[in-house]
Amino acid sequence: MFWLLFCIFFAACLGAGITGGLFAPGPWYRALNKPWFTPPNWVFPVTWMVLYVCMAVAGARAAMMENNGIAMAFWALQIAFNGLWTPVFFGLKNIRLGMVVVSLLWVTVLCGLLALWQLDVIAGVLFVPYLVWVSIAAALNAGVWRLNPEVARNPPPAPS
Amino acid sequence: MFWLLFCIFFAACLGAGITGGLFAPGPWYRALNKPWFTPPNWVFPVTWMVLYVCMAVAGARAAMMENNGIAMAFWALQIAFNGLWTPVFFGLKNIRLGMVVVSLLWVTVLCGLLALWQLDVIAGVLFVPYLVWVSIAAALNAGVWRLNPEVARNPPPAPS
Repeated sequence: MFWLLFCIFFAACLGAGITGGLFAPGPWYRALNKPWFTPPNWVFPVTWMVLYVCMAVAGARAAMMENNGIAMAFWALQIAFNGLWTPVFFGLKNIRLGMVVVSLLWVTVLCGLLALWQLDVIAGVLFVPYLVWVSIAAALNAGVWRLNPEVARNPPPAPS
Repeated sequence: MFWLLFCIFFAACLGAGITGGLFAPGPWYRALNKPWFTPPNWVFPVTWMVLYVCMAVAGARAAMMENNGIAMAFWALQIAFNGLWTPVFFGLKNIRLGMVVVSLLWVTVLCGLLALWQLDVIAGVLFVPYLVWVSIAAALNAGVWRLNPEVARNPPPAPS
């Protein structure tokens, strides 16, 4: 049962994560001024794959427990927002809206972490690196905004 | 407890659904040949709001039950794929990849429906209109592909 649950949650992670391949960083992103702590591009997919495994294990563990309603609801909420950031930031090139999305994602991951922790400490701990990474992502988004105020103020028109 | 769960699942639906506002149908979509059963544009957001309520009620009901693991995992999986179609179809304007996404979504909704039904007949029934609508969406995507073979073969380069 654990492995079936793991596979379903992992597939959900991949469904959200595939946006990173579809809306990949290109010339627009390269031309932006980046904060000093910006990791090289290859770090992002590698980190996300590790996080996806942690998230799927946490989801599968919680799914097998009783009274898991809140934890399961937040797991679904965070994955819905997880898949939203890349299309907004790289697809729409909207730095400010990206900041809104990553902030909402941060809150949903924190709520998920707390709900999981109450249910199962291991599941909660498995969400800690995820929260750390989303904090870094939010700091990156904020740094890009601060260092490129003109670009942030004038996102290109949405694709039509 | 039910209403808290409902709100979290409904927020997840809105997180996926906001893509419909961010990547809205524009001149590209208007210029496509559409199948005869294509509804007018306003039907889509109205239908989705009704479906989101049904999906959130189904999720909240199942979340309060024991042995809900598989149903909760599929609820998370379907919402991850739900938010993917619009950025692929309207953002990337990739009709063929849109067909892949909507087909995967259809399978995850069916699996979710079956898992929910086993747990709680009402929750399962609440997913029936969702499956019907995704079937229509898949038929629309397929129809657009068939009627615009050149556009489908040559999607524009991804935004960079």
